[in-house]
Amino acid sequence: MLNITGEALIGAASVRGTGEAFRAFSPVSGEDLQPEFHTVGLAEIASAATLAQAAFDSYRETDKDSRARFLETIAEQILELGDELIQRAMAESGLPRARLEGERGRTVGQLKLFAETLREGSWLDARLDTALPERAIPRPDIRMRMIALGPVAVFGASNFPLAFSVAGGDTASALAAGCPVVVKAHPAHPGTSELVGRAIQKAVALCGLHEGVFSLLTGIGNGLGADLVRHPAIQAVGFTGSRQGGLALMAIAAARPQPIPVYAEMSSINPVFLLPQALASRGEVIASGFAASLTLGVGQFCTNPGLILGIKGKDFERFAEQAAQALAAAQPGTMLTPGISAAYQRGVDGLARHPKVKTLKQRAAATASCQAAPALFITEASDFLAEHALSDEVFGPSSLLVACKDVAEMRQVAEKLEGQLTATLQMDDADTEMALGLLPVLERKVGRILVNGFPTGVEVSTAMVHGGPFPATSDSKSTSVGTAAIFRFLRPVSYQNMSQALLPAALKDGNPLQIWRRKDGQLGRA
Amino acid sequence: MLNITGEALIGAASVRGTGEAFRAFSPVSGEDLQPEFHTVGLAEIASAATLAQAAFDSYRETDKDSRARFLETIAEQILELGDELIQRAMAESGLPRARLEGERGRTVGQLKLFAETLREGSWLDARLDTALPERAIPRPDIRMRMIALGPVAVFGASNFPLAFSVAGGDTASALAAGCPVVVKAHPAHPGTSELVGRAIQKAVALCGLHEGVFSLLTGIGNGLGADLVRHPAIQAVGFTGSRQGGLALMAIAAARPQPIPVYAEMSSINPVFLLPQALASRGEVIASGFAASLTLGVGQFCTNPGLILGIKGKDFERFAEQAAQALAAAQPGTMLTPGISAAYQRGVDGLARHPKVKTLKQRAAATASCQAAPALFITEASDFLAEHALSDEVFGPSSLLVACKDVAEMRQVAEKLEGQLTATLQMDDADTEMALGLLPVLERKVGRILVNGFPTGVEVSTAMVHGGPFPATSDSKSTSVGTAAIFRFLRPVSYQNMSQALLPAALKDGNPLQIWRRKDGQLGRA
Repeated sequence: MLNITGEALIGAASVRGTGEAFRAFSPVSGEDLQPEFHTVGLAEIASAATLAQAAFDSYRETDKDSRARFLETIAEQILELGDELIQRAMAESGLPRARLEGERGRTVGQLKLFAETLREGSWLDARLDTALPERAIPRPDIRMRMIALGPVAVFGASNFPLAFSVAGGDTASALAAGCPVVVKAHPAHPGTSELVGRAIQKAVALCGLHEGVFSLLTGIGNGLGADLVRHPAIQAVGFTGSRQGGLALMAIAAARPQPIPVYAEMSSINPVFLLPQALASRGEVIASGFAASLTLGVGQFCTNPGLILGIKGKDFERFAEQAAQALAAAQPGTMLTPGISAAYQRGVDGLARHPKVKTLKQRAAATASCQAAPALFITEASDFLAEHALSDEVFGPSSLLVACKDVAEMRQVAEKLEGQLTATLQMDDADTEMALGLLPVLERKVGRILVNGFPTGVEVSTAMVHGGPFPATSDSKSTSVGTAAIFRFLRPVSYQNMSQALLPAALKDGNPLQIWRRKDGQLGRA
Repeated sequence: MLNITGEALIGAASVRGTGEAFRAFSPVSGEDLQPEFHTVGLAEIASAATLAQAAFDSYRETDKDSRARFLETIAEQILELGDELIQRAMAESGLPRARLEGERGRTVGQLKLFAETLREGSWLDARLDTALPERAIPRPDIRMRMIALGPVAVFGASNFPLAFSVAGGDTASALAAGCPVVVKAHPAHPGTSELVGRAIQKAVALCGLHEGVFSLLTGIGNGLGADLVRHPAIQAVGFTGSRQGGLALMAIAAARPQPIPVYAEMSSINPVFLLPQALASRGEVIASGFAASLTLGVGQFCTNPGLILGIKGKDFERFAEQAAQALAAAQPGTMLTPGISAAYQRGVDGLARHPKVKTLKQRAAATASCQAAPALFITEASDFLAEHALSDEVFGPSSLLVACKDVAEMRQVAEKLEGQLTATLQMDDADTEMALGLLPVLERKVGRILVNGFPTGVEVSTAMVHGGPFPATSDSKSTSVGTAAIFRFLRPVSYQNMSQALLPAALKDGNPLQIWRRKDGQLGRA
């Protein structure tokens, strides 16, 4: 572990915080890991934020090819870390090698996808309205493009120590937009964070960018994140984590003298609707697919299928048994942190004790501090509708089946749900009519609707929406995965009657960047 | 005034509120106008919001051509109101006939522009990622489109009783997006509001839409608006008005169990930078253009030039004299309401009494309750930088000149400004270097940068941004004027592995709507 020093990275410098010390904890061995990290204070937060502000004007005007090259350089530098990164991430998260290697691939892949997106250029949303000097009230020449919002604070998530952390989707999309980034490292994987942070720091230097483009702050406790969001230089926040954490950041951001947007991805129970024909024709296949999705990564996915709706009857009863059997066969897994594991046990025990809930598969007693086994419960739709607490997220491999009398009641449950990241329909062609009846409700409730799949596994692509109405996220108009994530960190500016010498390249006559532009309302690339 | 009954419009019904009665006030005659209006209560708010919710699923899925036709029908129905609308608006606002006829043209024009935008279809942001079944981890078919957010509450502004009111930009863009609208009529022009509301109500019926697509609530006091924003059916808010009003709505929206976005356009002093060569070569022309812009509509524009920065010296002194002279020649005008007029007098008197401010042109003593004459003041940049109150908006024809020692100090003042709707550069070619130095600061501070024009006069077009960083607006990523305003009321939804029978038309194979779509990252219309 030669490269991990326990320092925060403030621009080009490595700085040891003077606040509370902490170490990473291995959920596998149950031991603290070396080295010691230190919580940074207001001075370091101010340095990072002020450097980010100083970097902003030059960084946001780097041309799109240079910025694309920077993202690719970060990807290269992450790969350069080699196996040390994987080993450290395994030790800190308890996640297996194959998963973390896959996640590294995803992280590198999304950096490259944003590089491609940058080069393509339509994210600039360039618009040109030509002057109409002869009109009764003459129209001036007006042009518009997107510019970066400003320095962004990113809060790494614990459950994806690479893909949703220091160089994850929030950082990649903010850097792509032209925003300097200050990351608050998740204290569950500080060593992994430092390694990736140093890779970004090196990429900044290799690309000759202002050092303030990236900083990494270390620490435990809520004060650091709160102070970071309060800093006047920070102009937006990206967060993936708990509802409580997201709500706290939203409140802090709204109370600033200048309120700023918070993109918080918080909680979701990802309902799966088992439609009758599909259940009749392939209930067992669905049950085993469901069990695999539920236990993937020990249930520690934002898109974990935590709620399964079916219509009462033999087929649903058989599905419940088969799902319980499939889960009984699943091995217990190591959860990310003692805190997550304890919260999971509490959530599951709460359901097990609930008078209106029947246990189908009990979690096994924990054999080690972070071990967790899947759990499955069932309740009646009428009870689910009456008891709001039954729709609380239990983060981990636990799911609740809801038995509905009929499709009308299924729709009623859907209508009662809070906002979700996803909803899934398991359906056959003969279920189409019923699916068409549910669709309008689901569209209002979620960011992504899946058919005959399971919600875990979020593709990083052009059409992906990893978002959804509150409380799935704080802003349903955004996605934190996929190329559209860049729009969270951009805003439009109009230029009226401006000379070629002053206009940004994206808007100059002759389209020197060769990007898609909207001229007098018509898209074109001429 | 046959058509004005003083009722609120709840869906297809006309309803008399049971709360506090009020009448429109004519700032010209100083008299109350007939008929009496009544403030609606919680029951009417709930009816309107619940009807809007009931209308939502059918309205948001009307095809884009039907929705375009609906907007055009609203425009036709507004024109059908004939001169009664203009006369009533003149009586209620004190604005002259030509201005209101122009504003009616603008209102009708923006409805038609949104109809065109709808038909063109790229607002749907349709995206298709084809399945990659052979990939190591197979990729499913994923498609994305924009859907409407939900019922929108619109708060009409007093200063544009047509273009920013009942059928103004917020309503037009929300209806275009597929959102039902509940308007809170501005109590300064309730009769104008009712006439336009009835035109929309008629268009809803003519187009065979659900009656809940539009309602109009009447009332005085802050309770009505607050209760409307609190109603759970409301999913977004459009507001143009004071900073205090906007901040209050933002706080209410953030405190809801489900927070919702507020698009508030609040305050702006629209700095104009007089660069030295332009001032030397055509100071007098600029001074008369400035005076015309400042006094347009008695200064009651959000984009009124309230702050003029120049570099100390003979040219700037001469400009100050010429501007004061041009303003001395301007006739006093009738302001919209006694409240606005009183606030203007207070603001101007505050500047006149300020120890660091010199009066260049004093407001004349008021001859009638709503009469206001322009005022002009000057201060030193160092004083402006030290006294935050000097950058407060004085709504009306008052402006403050700021004398800077040099361009560095001019840039320092720009850097210190809060977010603005606009910034203007008066410059000659020889000023280009200096303008390039100011541009990065201005881009960070404003939504629109103008060269050699004046900020009043906001074109309704594709490339317009009428927005800007806080406190100009509550969301710098949005515009309330121009076709991009539609995006305030849309959010993306992904459809994964969905059959042709279930997919919305925008995403079906073969592109049946013939719209621009992004397929595997590439824009096309095939």
